[in-house]
Amino acid sequence: MAGRKPKPKAKLKIAALGGLEEIGKNMTMLEYGNDIMVIDCGLAFPEDDMLGIDLVIPDVTYLIKNIDKVRGIVLTHGHEDHIGALPYILKQLNVPVFGTLLTLGLLENKLREHKMLDKTVLHTVVPRERVNLGQFNVEFIHTNHSIADSVALAIHTPIGTVVHTGDFKVDYTPIDGEIIDLQRFGELGKEGVLLLMSDSTNAERKGFTMSEKNVGKVFEKIFEDTPKNRIMVATFSSNIHRIQQVVNAAYMYGRKVAIIGRSMVNAVKTASELEYLAIPPRTLIDIGEIKNYKDEQLVIITTGSQGETMSALTRIAMNEHKQVNVKPEDKIIISASAIPGNEKNVTRVINELLKKGANVIYGDMEEIHVSGHARQEELKLMLALTKPKFFMPVHGEFMHLSCHKDLALSMGLDKNNIFIMKLGEVLEVTRNEAKVNGTVPAGRVMVDGLGVGDVGNIVLRDRKHLSQDGLMVVVVTLDRESGTIVAGPDIISRGFVYVRVAEDLMDEAKKVVLEALLDCEEKNITSWNYIKGVIKDTLKNFLWQKTKRSPMILPIIMDV
Amino acid sequence: MAGRKPKPKAKLKIAALGGLEEIGKNMTMLEYGNDIMVIDCGLAFPEDDMLGIDLVIPDVTYLIKNIDKVRGIVLTHGHEDHIGALPYILKQLNVPVFGTLLTLGLLENKLREHKMLDKTVLHTVVPRERVNLGQFNVEFIHTNHSIADSVALAIHTPIGTVVHTGDFKVDYTPIDGEIIDLQRFGELGKEGVLLLMSDSTNAERKGFTMSEKNVGKVFEKIFEDTPKNRIMVATFSSNIHRIQQVVNAAYMYGRKVAIIGRSMVNAVKTASELEYLAIPPRTLIDIGEIKNYKDEQLVIITTGSQGETMSALTRIAMNEHKQVNVKPEDKIIISASAIPGNEKNVTRVINELLKKGANVIYGDMEEIHVSGHARQEELKLMLALTKPKFFMPVHGEFMHLSCHKDLALSMGLDKNNIFIMKLGEVLEVTRNEAKVNGTVPAGRVMVDGLGVGDVGNIVLRDRKHLSQDGLMVVVVTLDRESGTIVAGPDIISRGFVYVRVAEDLMDEAKKVVLEALLDCEEKNITSWNYIKGVIKDTLKNFLWQKTKRSPMILPIIMDV
Repeated sequence: MAGRKPKPKAKLKIAALGGLEEIGKNMTMLEYGNDIMVIDCGLAFPEDDMLGIDLVIPDVTYLIKNIDKVRGIVLTHGHEDHIGALPYILKQLNVPVFGTLLTLGLLENKLREHKMLDKTVLHTVVPRERVNLGQFNVEFIHTNHSIADSVALAIHTPIGTVVHTGDFKVDYTPIDGEIIDLQRFGELGKEGVLLLMSDSTNAERKGFTMSEKNVGKVFEKIFEDTPKNRIMVATFSSNIHRIQQVVNAAYMYGRKVAIIGRSMVNAVKTASELEYLAIPPRTLIDIGEIKNYKDEQLVIITTGSQGETMSALTRIAMNEHKQVNVKPEDKIIISASAIPGNEKNVTRVINELLKKGANVIYGDMEEIHVSGHARQEELKLMLALTKPKFFMPVHGEFMHLSCHKDLALSMGLDKNNIFIMKLGEVLEVTRNEAKVNGTVPAGRVMVDGLGVGDVGNIVLRDRKHLSQDGLMVVVVTLDRESGTIVAGPDIISRGFVYVRVAEDLMDEAKKVVLEALLDCEEKNITSWNYIKGVIKDTLKNFLWQKTKRSPMILPIIMDV
Repeated sequence: MAGRKPKPKAKLKIAALGGLEEIGKNMTMLEYGNDIMVIDCGLAFPEDDMLGIDLVIPDVTYLIKNIDKVRGIVLTHGHEDHIGALPYILKQLNVPVFGTLLTLGLLENKLREHKMLDKTVLHTVVPRERVNLGQFNVEFIHTNHSIADSVALAIHTPIGTVVHTGDFKVDYTPIDGEIIDLQRFGELGKEGVLLLMSDSTNAERKGFTMSEKNVGKVFEKIFEDTPKNRIMVATFSSNIHRIQQVVNAAYMYGRKVAIIGRSMVNAVKTASELEYLAIPPRTLIDIGEIKNYKDEQLVIITTGSQGETMSALTRIAMNEHKQVNVKPEDKIIISASAIPGNEKNVTRVINELLKKGANVIYGDMEEIHVSGHARQEELKLMLALTKPKFFMPVHGEFMHLSCHKDLALSMGLDKNNIFIMKLGEVLEVTRNEAKVNGTVPAGRVMVDGLGVGDVGNIVLRDRKHLSQDGLMVVVVTLDRESGTIVAGPDIISRGFVYVRVAEDLMDEAKKVVLEALLDCEEKNITSWNYIKGVIKDTLKNFLWQKTKRSPMILPIIMDV
């Protein structure tokens, strides 16, 4: 990993492989001379049109092609959209990974599941530490975010310093007592920052994001107001500080805490072992023990704040959880906001809980959630402290990047020095100049079951078609030589129409196809492909006319 | 339509056929003695799991069974979720329809498209008018909502008065100058209201909904601040008052107005003809004429505020609109909030518009939209004015109904007199008592193409399955007598995996199936069903083991 000699006048090249014009799948690469370093390696959840897809990871073709240059992957924090693709990517790109203690702790759980832990080199770092990755000297800077142990990066290169904020907010009263290291950002700005890449997730929102500590005060009030009943809190398993505040409130009001949901149990275990979570003795109980306590002595912390189908809270709501039933007057706090796309699932879960008599606190009813991302005033603070020469907003949809650009413009940055980039576009930076020049491969690699990248647009198009109007299979057995009909045609449909109410339609369809086949027979046609085309067109027209639907039609000819 | 003699001590029965535990598809029936009347007849848009479904309408089995009793359908306003199912329902239930001028004007457009206009009896009513439907004396009361000409209903029955608010808000400065008829609600309350059914859509929200007039002021400010560029406004085509305010601002700043999007063109035409929309002379131009004007002389009013795929604004954003291209610096106002489920489509459209350099105002950036539904303080006002004996919150998810119930409780209503009902549940009301007693059929009838109700759960389950993992068709030709293999097995897949990258897998699959078939042959098995089962299980296990996916498997045996 020792530095190679720089090419004279080497340029710094930067390209995002994920995290631009999207929320999630964050990954950025920097290349200088013979060295490449990578920031984060996240996954995204599938869009609505990616039917059947489990998750989406970045396309790392360029890195694999240049594997000899890749010095390592540096992680900013332990969220799925920053570390989730690593188990898949490391299989093809086995390079050292650098991160803080909790980030690597959460990553280890993942790698263990994928049987990748032994094969991976992990380096733990602490804020203010510096690591050399070839000619990149990477400095870790403490930040605040909705997961503990988050860092920004100052990447010192031969031509100047690049600051990447990771995901961040400015919390003056954070739970762990450590305010984001504003002084260091200021110091870097004083020394001169060549390029700033900064989190745009909340760039549309005015003002400041509230402190995590606010949520704790609201929890205390709710606990105070709930002297008799059981309390459940659903939140993100990675939000260790939020969990800490629930534990604190529970301890204050003499309640035991039980944890449910696989990812929550894992996160609490890891965070406790690494001492990011302080649970007083005799506070934590096993979920099996809750029957030994009265309702007023219990708090249950659970997954399911997004209404995920298999999560503990959803199963509780649907009466499908083995150990926990909702009781009337249970107080249930959904301490999270719904991620776009999850609104309907969350609504469904809340409705079911309310129907069972629970008292559910959600949405804007109380201040039970704060974002982990900086709003406009914090983003301006970051720009003011670092005073970058060039600026690239990162992490967000185009609308967020665009708002972030407007903020920078309003502070006087030259519009020619601000770059809204596309995935894969290369920003070429020298000491004095930055410009977009060329591209590297970038895009979405879909994971479906064990398959990585074996589902592409054709498969998705077929799934979409099947999902809309279903399928008709037409089978006919023809004589190999003469083309005369030996058996069939038979028609089998799935997902098209409820067959019992459409028997006539199916009979008629069969008749129409038979006529077309007899016509082919008469004309002595023996091109199977031609006959398949005839079957398809005939049936398609017939069905459209009768039903205004277009199921997928699969003509199959067996010859004997 | 003359009243029949009441049965002695007849009870009033009320059941919602739509609009409870859901947003949309509003429809309520009231039955007293030999008379049934119906309030509204709306459609709902399909849920995420209703793959391929175009829209959802109420189940009117009970009404059809009792068609001799049904005296008419009364409409509260012209939104899709109140009138949209009529063209389908009237085909089975041809009864007179009552509504205000604009409501029926919008309905006529629909009926004309469905070639139903000549067959339908429409009665125009005005606020304060009363209509007899058997023993129901129905009074129409002016309200405010996001569509003009909305009414609430006071239904005078032999045992007391039922008030149904329709959808409403309280607007003290409405665009048409007509404040909701609070006095009449008060008067009714004074006389005694037996049952109130009231709109719960915004029951979660604190405070008051802002006046529509606020939006007009914001429009004026935006027009003032946009002296040089073209302005486009996307909103709901039914929001005639919003459109009026755009027209007013355009007129004030000397701009011509062009209308695009089929439903917008229709709505503007109907509302102008009926004089609900006042467009100054020489203000409206055809979209084809925009090239004759400078940008600063133009406003385009368009559909597409929900990012609907085929809408005018979406096609403009995607550069697919024939007459309008986005220009850099166009000012585009999305004057609507995204209906749950549409957020991602709206985001996509905004991103595309921004990428093309447009200046887009959306979401909370300015106060460019107000809701048409009453918030908590208005709902309390309605409860206070009508002082009902019994209360049934309507129109909303369970969470909204539940919040509305809490409001009523907080005002001192007896909890035994508040009824959160399910679809189809019958509320039986006498002068002194109300109770839930029995059910009528109710549910979701799915419309897919020309099919109404021919797609049910089995079809949807198949579509879901197909959409997740695709399909494998296995065809084999067997000898009818001996069961020996004559041809095949062949395997055809769709939506499963990109076949070129999985050739080996497909070859292996074929081999595995062949082995299973040979095994059957050896055992002299001639039950086609048994053999189909063997094919299915063999392939299913093989594929799960290899890919962790479960495509639908369709085994087809042709015999010769």
